[in-house]
Amino acid sequence: MALSRTRVSTALLALSLGLAATGPIAQDSLQDVMKNRGLTEKDVLSASKTYTPTGGRDEFLAFSSGGQSGQVIVYGIPSMRILKYIGVFTPEPWQGYGFDDESKEVLAQGRIHGKDITYGDTHHPAITETNGDYDGRYLFINDKANPRLAVIDLHDFETKQIVVNPFFKSAHGGAFVTPNSEYVMDPAQYAAPLSNGFVPLEEFNDRYRGGLTYWKFDNEKGRLDPSQSFTFELPPYSQDLSDAGKGPSYGWGFTNSFCSERYVGGNERGRPPFEAGCSSKDTDFLHVTNWKKAAELVAAGKVKKENGAYLIPMKQAVAEGILYLIPEPKSPHGVDVTPDGKFVTISGKLDSHTWVYSWAKIKAAIDNKKFEGKDPYGVPIIAINDVLHKSVNVGLGPLHTQYDSKPCVAYTSIYVDSMITKWDYCEGKVLHQLPVHYNVGHLMTMEGDSVSPDGKYLVSLNKLAIDRFNPVGPLHPQNHQLIDISGEKMELLYDMPIPLGEPHYAVAIASDKLKPGVRYKSGWNSRKDERSPWKTRAGREKTERSCDADGKCTVHVYGTTIRSHITPEIIEVEEGDTVSIHLTNLERAEDEVHGFAMYGHNVQLSIEPGKTASSTFVADRAGVYPYYCTEFCSALHLEMQGYLLVKPKGYKAKAVSLKEGTTYSQADYRKQVETNIATQGVIDGVVTFITSHNFKDFPTVVALVEDATDQLGFAEEAKAKSEAAAAKKDWSNAMLWANQWWQYQVKTADLGLRAKTHLEENGAKKVK
Amino acid sequence: MALSRTRVSTALLALSLGLAATGPIAQDSLQDVMKNRGLTEKDVLSASKTYTPTGGRDEFLAFSSGGQSGQVIVYGIPSMRILKYIGVFTPEPWQGYGFDDESKEVLAQGRIHGKDITYGDTHHPAITETNGDYDGRYLFINDKANPRLAVIDLHDFETKQIVVNPFFKSAHGGAFVTPNSEYVMDPAQYAAPLSNGFVPLEEFNDRYRGGLTYWKFDNEKGRLDPSQSFTFELPPYSQDLSDAGKGPSYGWGFTNSFCSERYVGGNERGRPPFEAGCSSKDTDFLHVTNWKKAAELVAAGKVKKENGAYLIPMKQAVAEGILYLIPEPKSPHGVDVTPDGKFVTISGKLDSHTWVYSWAKIKAAIDNKKFEGKDPYGVPIIAINDVLHKSVNVGLGPLHTQYDSKPCVAYTSIYVDSMITKWDYCEGKVLHQLPVHYNVGHLMTMEGDSVSPDGKYLVSLNKLAIDRFNPVGPLHPQNHQLIDISGEKMELLYDMPIPLGEPHYAVAIASDKLKPGVRYKSGWNSRKDERSPWKTRAGREKTERSCDADGKCTVHVYGTTIRSHITPEIIEVEEGDTVSIHLTNLERAEDEVHGFAMYGHNVQLSIEPGKTASSTFVADRAGVYPYYCTEFCSALHLEMQGYLLVKPKGYKAKAVSLKEGTTYSQADYRKQVETNIATQGVIDGVVTFITSHNFKDFPTVVALVEDATDQLGFAEEAKAKSEAAAAKKDWSNAMLWANQWWQYQVKTADLGLRAKTHLEENGAKKVK
Repeated sequence: MALSRTRVSTALLALSLGLAATGPIAQDSLQDVMKNRGLTEKDVLSASKTYTPTGGRDEFLAFSSGGQSGQVIVYGIPSMRILKYIGVFTPEPWQGYGFDDESKEVLAQGRIHGKDITYGDTHHPAITETNGDYDGRYLFINDKANPRLAVIDLHDFETKQIVVNPFFKSAHGGAFVTPNSEYVMDPAQYAAPLSNGFVPLEEFNDRYRGGLTYWKFDNEKGRLDPSQSFTFELPPYSQDLSDAGKGPSYGWGFTNSFCSERYVGGNERGRPPFEAGCSSKDTDFLHVTNWKKAAELVAAGKVKKENGAYLIPMKQAVAEGILYLIPEPKSPHGVDVTPDGKFVTISGKLDSHTWVYSWAKIKAAIDNKKFEGKDPYGVPIIAINDVLHKSVNVGLGPLHTQYDSKPCVAYTSIYVDSMITKWDYCEGKVLHQLPVHYNVGHLMTMEGDSVSPDGKYLVSLNKLAIDRFNPVGPLHPQNHQLIDISGEKMELLYDMPIPLGEPHYAVAIASDKLKPGVRYKSGWNSRKDERSPWKTRAGREKTERSCDADGKCTVHVYGTTIRSHITPEIIEVEEGDTVSIHLTNLERAEDEVHGFAMYGHNVQLSIEPGKTASSTFVADRAGVYPYYCTEFCSALHLEMQGYLLVKPKGYKAKAVSLKEGTTYSQADYRKQVETNIATQGVIDGVVTFITSHNFKDFPTVVALVEDATDQLGFAEEAKAKSEAAAAKKDWSNAMLWANQWWQYQVKTADLGLRAKTHLEENGAKKVK
Repeated sequence: MALSRTRVSTALLALSLGLAATGPIAQDSLQDVMKNRGLTEKDVLSASKTYTPTGGRDEFLAFSSGGQSGQVIVYGIPSMRILKYIGVFTPEPWQGYGFDDESKEVLAQGRIHGKDITYGDTHHPAITETNGDYDGRYLFINDKANPRLAVIDLHDFETKQIVVNPFFKSAHGGAFVTPNSEYVMDPAQYAAPLSNGFVPLEEFNDRYRGGLTYWKFDNEKGRLDPSQSFTFELPPYSQDLSDAGKGPSYGWGFTNSFCSERYVGGNERGRPPFEAGCSSKDTDFLHVTNWKKAAELVAAGKVKKENGAYLIPMKQAVAEGILYLIPEPKSPHGVDVTPDGKFVTISGKLDSHTWVYSWAKIKAAIDNKKFEGKDPYGVPIIAINDVLHKSVNVGLGPLHTQYDSKPCVAYTSIYVDSMITKWDYCEGKVLHQLPVHYNVGHLMTMEGDSVSPDGKYLVSLNKLAIDRFNPVGPLHPQNHQLIDISGEKMELLYDMPIPLGEPHYAVAIASDKLKPGVRYKSGWNSRKDERSPWKTRAGREKTERSCDADGKCTVHVYGTTIRSHITPEIIEVEEGDTVSIHLTNLERAEDEVHGFAMYGHNVQLSIEPGKTASSTFVADRAGVYPYYCTEFCSALHLEMQGYLLVKPKGYKAKAVSLKEGTTYSQADYRKQVETNIATQGVIDGVVTFITSHNFKDFPTVVALVEDATDQLGFAEEAKAKSEAAAAKKDWSNAMLWANQWWQYQVKTADLGLRAKTHLEENGAKKVK
């Protein structure tokens, strides 16, 4: 048996000479595959429209709400591959979200009446806009169940802020941004008292209310500013979705509603259920609000605060001319301003027509004070016949409309008929209808609610899967169907199951508008976007213990992670200590994330390159608690481990020194050094290969070379330690440090081989 | 403006006559698409091998661990579409997992030292086996961080049981089942005291230990039986993966290890890190255990208990001849018994060779007591040269091996080289090598660790994504690459990002072996697999309040959900009451799940058809708390709502009756009845279409027709109530019940239209 170290060097050498694998060779013809898999020509065409080869990029990224999973889902279009679940309202350990101290602070902002809320019901994501166009800076997402709104930074895809609505008890219809992200619209859903106390249902008409919050967004800070936000008090109709005006309708907002009957169910007492009483009229009410003028009133000190936040009473809104109602088709879900801001379309699920409202006509009615009456709360009602541009028979149970890049072209999701209707909102005619499977809720076109939709694709967010996929038990996935809208007729391309959560609404942005980072500045608190006070650097790691006057002690560990060790590897504390472990990931290389898990204490961190993440817990039980890296980061990832030792109170150590499990001789040391010298020769060979090619034209390779250079630097440090120990004839430590030196060489070789493969596969050229 | 109700009927009629959408028409040629998207012929071939048209089925289902997300991921092969995330160790609200009382009981089984653990680090899933072949009944998954093992029932894809290891402080290498699922192997990882107290690291060699638990599985009950399980005490080498013998090696188990140096790091004190000290020898130790004989010792009362569980001390295991060691390549990860049970392959990450052990030779050495010595704990060591069949140079950093359907063919993942090596373990030669992107951990072939692997596909579980996908911030997805292994050369087909979690290992089963259910028996506690004491039926809903001697009161709500209402719609309790809401989903239709969320109380249930789910909380604050259905179940899903009213203590209601928001006249009632009669005509038309075709040949349609028949029955009930109210000239209630009747008609039409579309799209034939 030859020894392993030598073998490795031989294998490395073979690879560096290019003896490795050749590329794959096609073994079947397309005809064979089609026959075997039962594919039609149309299927192969669809496949070729979505298939994205290894390393390919998607043209669009979709951000979908995760519904009651409390997350946001990110996927690529047209590949329909899910790229990330972002933790927002629900703790998620892979991301360390709700586990590290830093993200716990974000979740704590979302407490309701002092209580931690451990999930959300996310509904409508919205991307920040500049001049009405998506700018890809931030994403907003609401929680319907516990009315809250969160801010996700699209630089790192992390949740940075959660705000709690000061008035509402549910809020379905947010988030929708104004054209320069001045405000985020967030209306209430089920009517409730705006105060927190109990109010009997008998006082529903008088003391239950709806509302619409305009959250102020600080575009500089990238955070919502509750102190500058304001809420319209609205009648107890269940407000629903919203949209902000643009172009000619800039400065105004539109919010629809259902159950304007103000019905209160109680089927347990023999009353007809809510579903009957909330769907008995023929129309509901569209709410038209003037946020620009409202903001001026706030700025002028003319709006009072309740519950610590600005509230514009209905009476004031009516008096100031900033609140109107217009009838809308029954049980609508979606109010969608056209890209030019001239029209607003609304579909009601219990009307087969989509109604197209003319903003010019609405504005004229407002300016001329031409109303057909007032609602029971004194809000002026504009007559539908005064403002209707068209009413188009789109199908049974129409829901939500998005726009095409082509002028006047819209798409509406049709719930009961399970289809998408393509239609012309200028001429008021249906252009094409395509069945979907089954029962679509919202739909999404590319940047389809901005001033300049991108066309090309449409996604149908279907609520059922039933027979579309392999069965996985009584709880099915949802089904997002990708549809090609580039031609005259829509074409169904792909069915994508949603494996976790029930998306409600989604938005898609051209992916070249996003410029996510791959690392943080070293020692970064990513949630606060500032240097962490708990950061540390290589060689400066330390553990500090301090006790207060009552004898309560706190241990702060300032540690680091790097391929393949955590520093410190042993942490000793006393039973009852509060322990705060702060780890800075020293890596700079893309994707070199380290995790940190510990037995029995709910400790689980995800530490991306540069990040400092912290975990605080009470070591309430004497014992031995292993910890380790949870992200497979390197060949010796499993060896990236350590122990928390919790000593009993008052424990006195015996004067026993550690007995080595294995000791090493001078011969062991020499053998390791020989291996290392051979390995260095191999590395030099790979380096020669790389530098003899135009590697600087390949950013991926440049990054790998940087990383490899770092690793070789670490190898040099270990080599020096090894030689120092050898000089003292401490052969065990000489051997161990020589091995550490070799470990860094292996990491270097790993990077070099990846770089070499990349160059070979991407047509790098030899240079002089 | 014509009224909406009439419009709907007209639209329904148009559809029932077949005027709906036509199918999509291809607009581009394949050549155009290839040119536009930059696809090669090879890409189109790969696309056609994975693309699965709408409604298509995957041949295999993969179950992947979710790593530190604490979940299990289910995806289809070859489509590589993720179908489900199953909550296991981490609460997940979409599934109600860790939110409903029933699943909270499962999670509570996994408490460590009385503490709720809110995540897990899942590693190795294993499917139950019969005669060494996957049988698709149950799935096991371990938690490395907090050593636990969970049981998932593949009938409903739900977690049913969690057991806590009585000895270990971490456990990486489970779960691996014996050939008839008699036991599940679950070895320790980082050495620690087997007791719970503190033991100083200076006593590492003497008092820190490894171990291997054989969990007894009760195949009848589908649950692990801790009382019949036993653990081998093992030396403080970090035990790692395992595999059970089969065929000639049946009755034996194999477990590898790393850091058999017994090195204890401490880089904070200047010691070389664990990674150096744990990789300095040339070999580690394979542990060979005889579980069959061990089980006999347990049954014979010859094994003592510690910590309440059977523990076989090393001394006893050696004396009984059921524990042996054999050297293995350094830092291995994966010990894999060949399908015929004759060989065992092991790769060490720091050796470029995979070693093939002959079971016949191992057995001969054991039988002949031919050992090269003993380890420091007295365990006999078998010499490697006595048992080695082959040693094959597979590449740099080999890790894990899986088998092909072809005899002698194996695949090994090569970490440092980032490639898959296909090789022959009989002849000991490399057959082909294929680069992957990048740095593969485990790999998976179809049923590749069973007695009869299925060949066809291989998935490379890559740990990095870097440049493979659109960037989504510093935390990248993982990348599972699908590889076609049907031919002589492997071919890369598809890159699948893993959007949540870091999968470690996966298993794939032929999907026709799985028969998941779509509904539960009515009133079912799915976690206990028994009728829930809290079940109720339609019309039997009730709310019961009782107080104990101290005045502490509990309210039990026995409620139901059905399209589109919750019963009860109003729940009244008093501040301080403990409230338990138990909801039974009355639906029988596939995929008709209802959710239940309530403001401010962390209430979020997922109630699949038939299930009874419960939520218990303290109503500690007077107020108004809306609740609603969180799964988009029907057109009037948003109206599926209600209120919890928490009255202040001692609150006395005023004698005020509810004032209706809207009242209805005889004319309103008559108009609704006319609509309903017209709608019934349309439904009859759809029914005629369906029954005039061979719909009984389509199970999907049969199910839809059953559901539609149920809905029509509900419509009849509402109609009767409407007529009763009309007889009393109570026009408001007559109108509301007539509308409810219509709502059921709309649900019927929805189902009928879905059935009609299905028949049209699937070539149903006209019958006489």
